[in-house]
Amino acid sequence: MSESVCVFVVDDEALVLLTIEHAMEDGGFDHKTVLSAEDALTLLEKEGETCRALVTDVNLGGKLTGWDVARSAREQLPTLPVVYVTGDSAHEWAAHGVPNSVLISKPFVAAQIVNAVAGLLNTEPSLSAAS
Amino acid sequence: MSESVCVFVVDDEALVLLTIEHAMEDGGFDHKTVLSAEDALTLLEKEGETCRALVTDVNLGGKLTGWDVARSAREQLPTLPVVYVTGDSAHEWAAHGVPNSVLISKPFVAAQIVNAVAGLLNTEPSLSAAS
Amino acid sequence: MSESVCVFVVDDEALVLLTIEHAMEDGGFDHKTVLSAEDALTLLEKEGETCRALVTDVNLGGKLTGWDVARSAREQLPTLPVVYVTGDSAHEWAAHGVPNSVLISKPFVAAQIVNAVAGLLNTEPSLSAAS
Amino acid sequence: MSESVCVFVVDDEALVLLTIEHAMEDGGFDHKTVLSAEDALTLLEKEGETCRALVTDVNLGGKLTGWDVARSAREQLPTLPVVYVTGDSAHEWAAHGVPNSVLISKPFVAAQIVNAVAGLLNTEPSLSAAS
Amino acid sequence: MSESVCVFVVDDEALVLLTIEHAMEDGGFDHKTVLSAEDALTLLEKEGETCRALVTDVNLGGKLTGWDVARSAREQLPTLPVVYVTGDSAHEWAAHGVPNSVLISKPFVAAQIVNAVAGLLNTEPSLSAAS
Amino acid sequence: MSESVCVFVVDDEALVLLTIEHAMEDGGFDHKTVLSAEDALTLLEKEGETCRALVTDVNLGGKLTGWDVARSAREQLPTLPVVYVTGDSAHEWAAHGVPNSVLISKPFVAAQIVNAVAGLLNTEPSLSAAS
Repeated sequence: MSESVCVFVVDDEALVLLTIEHAMEDGGFDHKTVLSAEDALTLLEKEGETCRALVTDVNLGGKLTGWDVARSAREQLPTLPVVYVTGDSAHEWAAHGVPNSVLISKPFVAAQIVNAVAGLLNTEPSLSAAS
Repeated sequence: MSESVCVFVVDDEALVLLTIEHAMEDGGFDHKTVLSAEDALTLLEKEGETCRALVTDVNLGGKLTGWDVARSAREQLPTLPVVYVTGDSAHEWAAHGVPNSVLISKPFVAAQIVNAVAGLLNTEPSLSAAS
Repeated sequence: MSESVCVFVVDDEALVLLTIEHAMEDGGFDHKTVLSAEDALTLLEKEGETCRALVTDVNLGGKLTGWDVARSAREQLPTLPVVYVTGDSAHEWAAHGVPNSVLISKPFVAAQIVNAVAGLLNTEPSLSAAS
Repeated sequence: MSESVCVFVVDDEALVLLTIEHAMEDGGFDHKTVLSAEDALTLLEKEGETCRALVTDVNLGGKLTGWDVARSAREQLPTLPVVYVTGDSAHEWAAHGVPNSVLISKPFVAAQIVNAVAGLLNTEPSLSAAS
Repeated sequence: MSESVCVFVVDDEALVLLTIEHAMEDGGFDHKTVLSAEDALTLLEKEGETCRALVTDVNLGGKLTGWDVARSAREQLPTLPVVYVTGDSAHEWAAHGVPNSVLISKPFVAAQIVNAVAGLLNTEPSLSAAS
Repeated sequence: MSESVCVFVVDDEALVLLTIEHAMEDGGFDHKTVLSAEDALTLLEKEGETCRALVTDVNLGGKLTGWDVARSAREQLPTLPVVYVTGDSAHEWAAHGVPNSVLISKPFVAAQIVNAVAGLLNTEPSLSAAS
């Protein structure tokens, strides 16, 4: 059990990042953090094989959104657990989210992030077991 | 009960269309059929308010795909039940499908289409009941 | 397989009843039909042990509603599959429906009723298997 | 993220309350606690708009039960996550619980309460996203 | 769509077989039928690659049961939809069934078999899409 | 609430055991630990009535595996929550796991174990409530 379970976190708001990173540490997860969609795509390209789950804000302050990041990540890693956090884009999830993802509306608490990531990881084995 | 439940069907292959339309009639559904993504978008714009579910092929022979049609439909109708049928694009669903959708791989039978549309319609009330 | 699977149907509108009864027959189910909540309670008391599923309209034209019928039925038969059909009471389901029930909004088609009843019956064995 | 996520807790047993409140704090939730069904209804009337989830004991020592509290809460807040805790009323849930609720039997641990509340909150966005 | 969707059916009771085969044909499925667990294993070995779903009675009148048939089938085809039908072995499912299977208790109707097979096939694409 | 919720843990690797035991304590669970399948069967026979959930490694270094332990446990306790952890046997779950179980692949974190056990315990009441 020396290996870790690494979650990629994408957010451009310092306070939300703190909550998410604290939640990840509390749950026992490692995390790699980036502040923009562009950096997220670079991280996925370079170190995607270490990514076990993605937590991304939807609005990332640039042209690309969390919807774009998740779609790129799923093209590379089709079974990747995806969790979106959002202040005001929940209504777009039905059209722009990926299947089998969880959307968490702000304000949220640490337990919701941990519950979402752990829950999606725990349902993944049925997929890999069956592939 | 004079009103009908109308399903929009989008497919460019005559034989698949026949199977889907036959399935819809068997299940008691009305349907409106178009042969391209472009016609689907026009139909949604003109008569979207009559649409209770969408069944779309993924590869539609043009630039736009079934992934695009479903995303547009969900922007207009966020709770719309969406069923994709596909011969060889199942691997793209994890990145390009909409949440709470069903993907059916060819070859398929009538009962699968009816089951998917009826099942999604039957879980929709929890949404409208809660909204 | 000479035994039958009997569904209790409660509705005071002749046309809706016709659709439901036709759907039940199509699916291979037997059915016993009553036109009021009061008759439903009497039927449950007398022949409840033959009831494998309940399909009830919500508004039954009297003091008692389909919400009441389902609650009484579940007190007697805790694992009974329950399907509500309703024209305009969908918004009350979140407060007045029973757990693990399905609500179908009018207009609906035969396939939705059959899908709901068969689907609930098929998830029941996990209950009895575990009891 | 200065806003909090507030859970209403209803219980008349001091020791159970302690476990629930401790669990809520551990998970990062705020909570407002009342000791009776009557006080719960008053709290919902006055401050219902701040309520993000309800955790209620079933037997509350008075005429009204947790079943009644949850039904009232859902009439006011149709998408409210509801968690029941109970020592000996689990068999009544099938008839008296609200849909999409979780029932936890005593004895239970903190992680079960946090898992139930966080899990129900995390599935709520699909509702609001689609409404 | 000239290809068919073939379901393997295993049952040693003529009347139950008739109901299942009739249900399969009604739903649009092809089927291959065998009367014993031993013949089922031979069929899987010879023509397993044509099998899209398995419907098996639990008690098959010999040493091997439907539990054994399903386990063998899943070793060969890990994502295979599995439906058990049984008169009196429902209580064994929790220990001897395979994950993501459906158990249908006798007496049952055609719609339950079709619903179970179609429903499991329709959730399979998420697996293959993600593999 | 002086009673505890006891989880049986079966693992022959000291480091994995440490992670699981730490997770259980963090979540508020009591646990009884054994290092082999044989000891697990003895523990179930002697103290099975105190067991509220089972967490077992699949490969236990002997003839019997975690698949065997879970099957025996479910024969005795049909509603028992079962969680498997495994390094390289995930592909066998589809054929050898019990229904309604969770499989967690190594490496994993504490939050996944707690989420799996708490989640399965929280869905169990619907079973007992309906039995």
